[in-house]
Amino acid sequence: MVKALFTPRSIAVIGASRTPGKIGYVVLRNIKGYGFPGKVYPVNPQADEILGYKAYPSILDVPDEVDVAIVTVPADAVPKVMEECGRKGVKVAVIITSGFSEVGNVELENRIVETARKYGMRILGPNIFGYVYTPSSINATFGPLEVAKGNIALISQSGALGIALMGWTIMNEIGLSALLSVGNMADLDVAELSEYLADDPNTRVITIYLEGIKPGKGGEFVEKMRKVTLKKPVVVIKAGRSRRGAAAAASHTGSLAGSDNLYEAAFKQSGIIRAYTVEEMFDIARAFAAQPLPKGENTIIITNGGGVGVLATDAAEFNDVKLLEPSQELREKLKTTMPWFGSAKNPVDLTGQAVVDNYVKALRIAAESSEVDNIVILYCRTAVLDPRDLAKAIVELYEAEHIDKTTVAGFVGGEDTYEAIKYLNRHNIPAYPSPERAVYALSKMVWYRRYLEARRALPQA
Amino acid sequence: MVKALFTPRSIAVIGASRTPGKIGYVVLRNIKGYGFPGKVYPVNPQADEILGYKAYPSILDVPDEVDVAIVTVPADAVPKVMEECGRKGVKVAVIITSGFSEVGNVELENRIVETARKYGMRILGPNIFGYVYTPSSINATFGPLEVAKGNIALISQSGALGIALMGWTIMNEIGLSALLSVGNMADLDVAELSEYLADDPNTRVITIYLEGIKPGKGGEFVEKMRKVTLKKPVVVIKAGRSRRGAAAAASHTGSLAGSDNLYEAAFKQSGIIRAYTVEEMFDIARAFAAQPLPKGENTIIITNGGGVGVLATDAAEFNDVKLLEPSQELREKLKTTMPWFGSAKNPVDLTGQAVVDNYVKALRIAAESSEVDNIVILYCRTAVLDPRDLAKAIVELYEAEHIDKTTVAGFVGGEDTYEAIKYLNRHNIPAYPSPERAVYALSKMVWYRRYLEARRALPQA
Repeated sequence: MVKALFTPRSIAVIGASRTPGKIGYVVLRNIKGYGFPGKVYPVNPQADEILGYKAYPSILDVPDEVDVAIVTVPADAVPKVMEECGRKGVKVAVIITSGFSEVGNVELENRIVETARKYGMRILGPNIFGYVYTPSSINATFGPLEVAKGNIALISQSGALGIALMGWTIMNEIGLSALLSVGNMADLDVAELSEYLADDPNTRVITIYLEGIKPGKGGEFVEKMRKVTLKKPVVVIKAGRSRRGAAAAASHTGSLAGSDNLYEAAFKQSGIIRAYTVEEMFDIARAFAAQPLPKGENTIIITNGGGVGVLATDAAEFNDVKLLEPSQELREKLKTTMPWFGSAKNPVDLTGQAVVDNYVKALRIAAESSEVDNIVILYCRTAVLDPRDLAKAIVELYEAEHIDKTTVAGFVGGEDTYEAIKYLNRHNIPAYPSPERAVYALSKMVWYRRYLEARRALPQA
Repeated sequence: MVKALFTPRSIAVIGASRTPGKIGYVVLRNIKGYGFPGKVYPVNPQADEILGYKAYPSILDVPDEVDVAIVTVPADAVPKVMEECGRKGVKVAVIITSGFSEVGNVELENRIVETARKYGMRILGPNIFGYVYTPSSINATFGPLEVAKGNIALISQSGALGIALMGWTIMNEIGLSALLSVGNMADLDVAELSEYLADDPNTRVITIYLEGIKPGKGGEFVEKMRKVTLKKPVVVIKAGRSRRGAAAAASHTGSLAGSDNLYEAAFKQSGIIRAYTVEEMFDIARAFAAQPLPKGENTIIITNGGGVGVLATDAAEFNDVKLLEPSQELREKLKTTMPWFGSAKNPVDLTGQAVVDNYVKALRIAAESSEVDNIVILYCRTAVLDPRDLAKAIVELYEAEHIDKTTVAGFVGGEDTYEAIKYLNRHNIPAYPSPERAVYALSKMVWYRRYLEARRALPQA
């Protein structure tokens, strides 16, 4: 049944509106504008047609099967709508409407869950902004129309933050497979959606903004997520980790506040990667989305600036990234691509005189060396090397040589450096505006490799 | 003598070149292009005129006093040049040339220091990219021409990073008063330059990228910096804090590697604020540069999104920012500017329905309340509130009402939100793309207030 949410043949919008600005209008406009190729049925007793689609007074009047129903009618009208959806054979009801348990209206929420159970229907929501699944060209949210396609899934327990992040991901060119607003999680919850995404070929990494798990669901969460993380990396930002923040989260979504230690333990047991800011979460996800998993522990840093090399070295040590001690042979090879005052130790310092050729040669040597598993490319803006030229050369090299050593880049500079960072990201070299963020992202990939090795060494249940 | 570096009447460039791309050309071009109003004397025995300035074969031929000499000749020619500078009465020699102690050439470095001492001349460098002091319209670097004017001073022990940060500060609209490359610190060092900047009316906050203090200079560093931090906040990023990073830093600048514990202790004793990434350093500096110091501990968070409110609450607790418990009276006032399901507790949740008026009213109430010392304004992009409208309204309110409660903003969204952030920053409301970064910056201002109170309660030496 959950599958129908992601690959529906038809979507109804119950409470579709002709009034621009209304939620029932924006959702329909987004479904249409984002190019959903299946059938779309607005339901509105006062309209014959909305946005070019024929409208129906009730979902029961739709002359076809309906896989997904987006519900935007007021809360007190939802029970009747759910009953009709059930009778119609709707597979998933996406209830955008708010005014349920999040404002204390638990009884109303229980009622719609019972109706859904009776008919074998699933619920996403209520109290959500909708959902996106880019492989099926579905944007059924009342957020922005534009969503960049990619292979990162985002599940958000906060509606406002989720919508705000839609714009943020566009600006930062973070490509999404799915964006799922889960709201009150009356039925479908973070764990079950993650289970589905774990088998989704269009998703490589799952990111989650979590405020809390429902009381009594902790064990189930761990059990399910442990299976998910065997298949795909999961990065979670857990809000409400402070005492006061937990109280705020509890009042915000009615979820179990709980001590952060409990969550920390649950994440550890589940193999979940924890991020502490939204930026961190996407920094990590971007790396997983673009790069193959590390094949080993040994990381080499290649830089044109001593300072950023030191910062990266610090970040490596504090984040448990093992820096390679290059062999005499490897050092001698690297020495051939730098001036005499460069350093072939790790960090490999090509010096501020480095031009494209020095980097390309050093990268080729690193890529060909069996000592090296992972590569961190650092760059400081210099007058002799345009960052855009360097970015292009790196992408060319990686594509031509099919380099599959896990690689991240940290480039420091102004506008042209920012362009180079974007170029690298568009071509699957995860790139960041600082050495620390690059190393941090890599550290989580290295950690995940270790985690998988350890899990796979165990007999599986 | 140090003063002459910042307010010279004349600058000579020894080793000035007519060849675009050469350091001796770029420095002169930047001095001219950035509009230094004093006299400029290129020194080059092979040229009559460079970039429109009359050139002289030796500094001794310049028919005028020279306050600052920028030295770009090769290392082995520097001793003779220094001797001539001394005889000429140059006050500060800015030695860009490298090839001294950083490559083991300690003897050569000692020689130029002796020459300087003999003549009472000061040295900035060697092995630097030059320096900038925007109030005097000086850009004597071989980095980019453009430098945004402002009141943040940056001292960098790394040349490559310093130059890269020139572009970075432009892109991020971070206004600088001074940018001082210190390189080998043969004479002028971080502490002495900080002492000068502490009394510089054009500098509000001092930021430092530090790799290490010279052996034996630790006590002096603490003693001087303790005086500086009584006058101005100092934010330091210390590279080489890991074991391996320290070794890399030592080989990079020849500075004392030392255990990070020693540095940590020195910073604590000196009242220095420590940042862990370049981004953090400027996040903090931006807040100090734009806002008055907090007058008390009580902070209120005003938001339109529960999720970001929770994230900010977490950040407040972990960074030791005390959140106000609003009185009944204050809560009732705040209640008048939100729908019934909003929250007048702290974080104050205006809900996703909030428009400009709700924010303005809430901010006015907070500003007028004697309970509130500091304000965190949070915003998540919603369809009903354009972030640019909100930013404008905030700036108008703060300017019209002369609100002097310490305020930071965290806005989450896409391109238009990014524009709003820029607008706020340009108008002295420090704004960040996440709630965590806003609270983090505020936390350092709150800490600094506490620090000053404690210091001022002590009898001063």
